[in-house]
Amino acid sequence: MARIQFETVLEVVTEAFVRAGMRPEDARICARVHTESSCDGVYSHGLNRVARFVDYLKRGWVDAGARPTLVKKLGVIEIHDGNRGPGILNAFFATDRAMAIAAAQGVGIVTLRNTTHWMRGGTYGWYAADKGYVAIGWTNTESCMPSWGGKDTRLGNNPFMMAVPRGKGHIVLDMAMSQYSYGKLQVTRLKGAQLPYPGGFDEDGNLTSEPGPIEQSMRILPMGYWKGSGFAILLDALAAILSEGLATNRIDPIGRGSCTGASQVFILFDPRQLGGEAFSEQVADSVVDYVNSSVPDERSKEVLYPGQSALRIRAEHRANGIVVDDGVWAEVLGLAGVRGQKFEKTEDR
Amino acid sequence: MARIQFETVLEVVTEAFVRAGMRPEDARICARVHTESSCDGVYSHGLNRVARFVDYLKRGWVDAGARPTLVKKLGVIEIHDGNRGPGILNAFFATDRAMAIAAAQGVGIVTLRNTTHWMRGGTYGWYAADKGYVAIGWTNTESCMPSWGGKDTRLGNNPFMMAVPRGKGHIVLDMAMSQYSYGKLQVTRLKGAQLPYPGGFDEDGNLTSEPGPIEQSMRILPMGYWKGSGFAILLDALAAILSEGLATNRIDPIGRGSCTGASQVFILFDPRQLGGEAFSEQVADSVVDYVNSSVPDERSKEVLYPGQSALRIRAEHRANGIVVDDGVWAEVLGLAGVRGQKFEKTEDR
Repeated sequence: MARIQFETVLEVVTEAFVRAGMRPEDARICARVHTESSCDGVYSHGLNRVARFVDYLKRGWVDAGARPTLVKKLGVIEIHDGNRGPGILNAFFATDRAMAIAAAQGVGIVTLRNTTHWMRGGTYGWYAADKGYVAIGWTNTESCMPSWGGKDTRLGNNPFMMAVPRGKGHIVLDMAMSQYSYGKLQVTRLKGAQLPYPGGFDEDGNLTSEPGPIEQSMRILPMGYWKGSGFAILLDALAAILSEGLATNRIDPIGRGSCTGASQVFILFDPRQLGGEAFSEQVADSVVDYVNSSVPDERSKEVLYPGQSALRIRAEHRANGIVVDDGVWAEVLGLAGVRGQKFEKTEDR
Repeated sequence: MARIQFETVLEVVTEAFVRAGMRPEDARICARVHTESSCDGVYSHGLNRVARFVDYLKRGWVDAGARPTLVKKLGVIEIHDGNRGPGILNAFFATDRAMAIAAAQGVGIVTLRNTTHWMRGGTYGWYAADKGYVAIGWTNTESCMPSWGGKDTRLGNNPFMMAVPRGKGHIVLDMAMSQYSYGKLQVTRLKGAQLPYPGGFDEDGNLTSEPGPIEQSMRILPMGYWKGSGFAILLDALAAILSEGLATNRIDPIGRGSCTGASQVFILFDPRQLGGEAFSEQVADSVVDYVNSSVPDERSKEVLYPGQSALRIRAEHRANGIVVDDGVWAEVLGLAGVRGQKFEKTEDR
């Protein structure tokens, strides 16, 4: 492990994306999302995901230069085709459009069809909350999880996010429909550890906390068993219907990497036009205080609200550098064409 | 157990509500929801809930004659005060208003503050889907569940519903944020059985599938552990902000039975104005087919979509009478002032 300053990571990842064919200004926007994800401790969609995105650009699965085009406008709703451009750029575009509509009309709803991986879903919640908006958003994905009662993968993990702006720290939920990500299974297996709670079924249908057999069976558990399964099904259907796009059953045959052809929904509200900013802040503070003032259980020292942990990691990483895996960092430096560790400020831990 | 015809149940429950002070037309609407809930197998909010609702009417906790009043209108958004009228009537009012707005503008968003228990959340999803609308809705509630990492109840179970219309049977998700309801814990305990998967923590903080110790500790498990906890927190904050109403932390001090003072959100889309009815149907069918054609696991004969099981129970109950608990039915007959089993057509099972 090493510690690398935020600005250095941003610069290196930007260079990697420019070398993969992105315009410098686009590369920087995408690089910032990957950097911020690692900075918040969400490594799976941070530095760990840079090489795969570069690979998709090189294969042409993501069209670096494509931009969304308007399919339909209906009052506060806009449907755009993502044209398989960079998912991050498309999702920011959709969030910006939804905010502009919400600023004028209280709510803005923008959907994307035919887009690509938006990386960390929470990104767009934090972004909207920074500008004072309440946000709900989700994406469908290729299948990676069985329906409840089934053996074969039929459901996407369909990440879902919600955000509420708050002066002392936004409340941001960012959750996929599986109890654990495959990334979490892998990391846990490599440590030789067990999952804290069962994460799926092995090949014989036994519920297990051992990550390896779940990775093999691909019988990963929906969060809350039948509940996460049902939620994933509805999120998929709504994303496709509201974007005039593809559901998981039509994303699967594309077979071009994660989320290629996906449908996304962004619903943004402007609380300044509803009860007002002061009221919204007061509600958000009261919700946070109620959670934070819980009596901690036998395993906990404190009880946190969604987003609180990310904020702490962010502050620590901003102060002391982002903790990066040496191998992952070397890979990203390679993609940026950096030799001799020009950008590197390592600190052994 | 007995079997009672749908129309008989509806008539008896209507009479019970009229005797409790409701206008006959209002009583019939509310009675229909309780009857349909039992008919779909959702007993907790069906016949089992009639006596408690009558009690709330008699105490004045639900104002039988109150109707929603408009707080604010902003484009496609309307905020109404439920004035603590019957939660079912308020929720139908909100759904109807949201459909009317969506019919004109593609989407309609209606929120209610200061309402009372809407009973079965899925009711409004089935209702909207019957009329061709896509629906998302939720309510907050008084607290009944700890935040993840906490011991004391700080979160509502905040039922959440989504619905997609489909000619061959709507796709309807209706889920609370706890893995199991207290009703399910009670029923399981009375049977002397265990929950299929752990449902909460006992007083000592051990995860358990024994219902009794969880009922005692009130440390019921959020679905998906930290995920359902986070989702409950965000649903609560959004419901309060979007309705200019109360969050759970301000519903708790009211202390007047379940959901008194709650905030609710109804977001309805008209797919006929987006990709069109044929497209929406095709997506819904494809999503259902993908789930139904899963390879069943070791414990299952088939894999169902959300709402499919309710439809089957509904058809069977419509044909053969609703299965009712003898004690519960006697209680409801008593509330309706029925002696001599006038309405009853019992069939021993």
